[in-house]
Amino acid sequence: MGKTIAEKIFSKHSKKDVKAGDYILAKLDIVLVNDITGPLSVMEFQKLGDIKVFDKDKIVIICDHFTPNKDIKSAQNVKMLRNFAKNQNIRHFYEPGHVGIEHVMIPELGLAQPGYLIIGADSHTCTYGALNAFSTGVGSTDAGMAMATGDTWFRVPPSFRVEIRGKQKKWISGKDVVLHLIGRIGVEGANYFALEFCGEGLRNLSIDDRFTISNMAIECGGKAGIFNYDEVTEKYLKSLGIDASNYVEADKDANYEKSITIDLSDLDYTVSLPFSPDNTINVSKLEKTYVDQVVIGSCTNGRISDLRVAAEILTNKKVKDGLRVIVLPGSPKVYLEALREGLIEKFIIAGAAVSTPTCGPCLGGHMGILAEDEVCVSTTNRNFIGRMGHPKSKVILASPAVAAASAITGYITSPEEVM
Amino acid sequence: MGKTIAEKIFSKHSKKDVKAGDYILAKLDIVLVNDITGPLSVMEFQKLGDIKVFDKDKIVIICDHFTPNKDIKSAQNVKMLRNFAKNQNIRHFYEPGHVGIEHVMIPELGLAQPGYLIIGADSHTCTYGALNAFSTGVGSTDAGMAMATGDTWFRVPPSFRVEIRGKQKKWISGKDVVLHLIGRIGVEGANYFALEFCGEGLRNLSIDDRFTISNMAIECGGKAGIFNYDEVTEKYLKSLGIDASNYVEADKDANYEKSITIDLSDLDYTVSLPFSPDNTINVSKLEKTYVDQVVIGSCTNGRISDLRVAAEILTNKKVKDGLRVIVLPGSPKVYLEALREGLIEKFIIAGAAVSTPTCGPCLGGHMGILAEDEVCVSTTNRNFIGRMGHPKSKVILASPAVAAASAITGYITSPEEVM
Repeated sequence: MGKTIAEKIFSKHSKKDVKAGDYILAKLDIVLVNDITGPLSVMEFQKLGDIKVFDKDKIVIICDHFTPNKDIKSAQNVKMLRNFAKNQNIRHFYEPGHVGIEHVMIPELGLAQPGYLIIGADSHTCTYGALNAFSTGVGSTDAGMAMATGDTWFRVPPSFRVEIRGKQKKWISGKDVVLHLIGRIGVEGANYFALEFCGEGLRNLSIDDRFTISNMAIECGGKAGIFNYDEVTEKYLKSLGIDASNYVEADKDANYEKSITIDLSDLDYTVSLPFSPDNTINVSKLEKTYVDQVVIGSCTNGRISDLRVAAEILTNKKVKDGLRVIVLPGSPKVYLEALREGLIEKFIIAGAAVSTPTCGPCLGGHMGILAEDEVCVSTTNRNFIGRMGHPKSKVILASPAVAAASAITGYITSPEEVM
Repeated sequence: MGKTIAEKIFSKHSKKDVKAGDYILAKLDIVLVNDITGPLSVMEFQKLGDIKVFDKDKIVIICDHFTPNKDIKSAQNVKMLRNFAKNQNIRHFYEPGHVGIEHVMIPELGLAQPGYLIIGADSHTCTYGALNAFSTGVGSTDAGMAMATGDTWFRVPPSFRVEIRGKQKKWISGKDVVLHLIGRIGVEGANYFALEFCGEGLRNLSIDDRFTISNMAIECGGKAGIFNYDEVTEKYLKSLGIDASNYVEADKDANYEKSITIDLSDLDYTVSLPFSPDNTINVSKLEKTYVDQVVIGSCTNGRISDLRVAAEILTNKKVKDGLRVIVLPGSPKVYLEALREGLIEKFIIAGAAVSTPTCGPCLGGHMGILAEDEVCVSTTNRNFIGRMGHPKSKVILASPAVAAASAITGYITSPEEVM
């Protein structure tokens, strides 16, 4: 029997011939924590005594959630992590001025590569599947132990095959693809499965589209969302100076629990209504839905192509009177690119606020928290009850194009309506 | 007996011939509140019943302290103010995307003019003295009542005459002037006095230098810090399309309680050590003092010329490894100017984080709160215990030039040392 990408990556990292369902111990290429989960991980690590981390270059600490420090508690957490990084001589410690959202930064830093096995104490660690890696979120305790040992246990997941066909119309993005998928199979539809994305349609999905899709694999329960390696991946990695000869392909006779086909040409602008990412609807079928706030950013949609789309739609337009629009570039690199391309200027002129890179409001952290009964259309990844603030507030998930169009009209709007 | 500027402004606004010490009721040109004080003011206002504000164009609500909303409480507060502004048809309501720091925005909006009488429920309302206005901070209750009546009571303050002479060396700014002054007379040195700035040296103080000086009048207890009107004021106001024929001059025989002379050529780079703005020392006399964070911004020093100075010093330089540097442009206008002049790019390249306009960390609000034992050099206005976060953190007040130089070295540094 042939192997899926997941089975191959786990075989290589456990030095065993593994198949779905096996319980194994696997070596890790990267262990990631942030300013929320990191302190818990470090406390677990420190219970092991006065030891060193397994590899000072393979542990990454990114203080992105509540920074620049929103309060004393977050300042204390970051301080604890800073001291830990210093004592352990950890190379990859990032805080404001140098920090971006972890899942935007890790690929930029070249720390996610084809065939890698990555864990992060953050559920959206699955993002790097876009680069043909197996990456997944774990608890803080697991991450803390892994900092010491360099490995962790897994149950090798079975896989779903997601075949992408066709070509999407303009303004349809990876966000529409993944919201469509989640809507189809439900938030538990892929519980503990790896999603494997393949098919001739992949060529029409940019690397940023893929980051968005892999990022939200967890929103249908996926343990990972892994893309086949192709010219798009190769070109991106080359731009980072990475030679990706170690990419992983599934065997032709690999075993998949389920096959799903998505034809990009069938897709329309998709949003997820409260209070679940699988509560999807096409914008064209939606009643007029007014919003109080628009958020463009996050690990899902805070990359340069996301900002380009939003800026194109907002060029020479104004944010609807009374609406708050908050744009959060995903990293200093994205911020600088957006600055040099004139995107930041377009946002400011349109009447948006541009934040320093941070996870910010996505998780109800800071930089745009909602009051009672307020509605936000957001390019983020979760719209659970109270996710962005008050328990009676609402979040509608959308693509950057839909979010930007809605910023102009004040209600959920397709980009075609304003362009 | 002749009159001071303060006595003349109060005479005009009370339609009486008043002198220092008189208790009077005076008409107000502007009543200002923010997202901290505003909700309290509005609650007081609403106790008066279902009434309208005295003038919908003279009440200004600027949500600058905890926005973009840092938490649910701040979101609820802003929502309450937004609803109030909408119900009362208040023209000047500002929130993210359109908001800057109140004391940066009010002059930009042309709402502070020579001879005006302005109150604001924020202690740094004294900033507009730079434009030859009498402006001062009041409590939320007073502001709430004034929203209804358009007037409030005052005890007309006696005045100090501060004569400015000479010319400062490069990098010496309004911040050094006012820290020097506060260091000389102490934090209670001008309690309930109006400071009146005059003299041939005024010509060497830019309008932004003056905003900084007037802004910190309160830090030596001053009720106001009023500048004489001159060509610098005129040029600034003309750039805003304001014809300032109503400026106010003191009579030659006006009565001053005290006279102080500051020779600009005597000034050196001045900082205030913890925990009081009057705990001043020249940088040249300071032992090597390491810092963990640098903040450049605030109502004191968040204007375009402040950012120009900081950017000039940081050009082709890097922020010291391990240091957090947070730059907060004072308003969307300042942000856009800084963007177009290439200053934002310089900050990002140097390794600073650039925030959306907000009061942020100055008052321990958000966007850069300090942990235990951390030290911050900041261009803000107060360094009391716990002002920027943890009760055991410390703030050192400085000019943008000293803050930027310190960002490069990691310790309190004069600009000459790095330029």
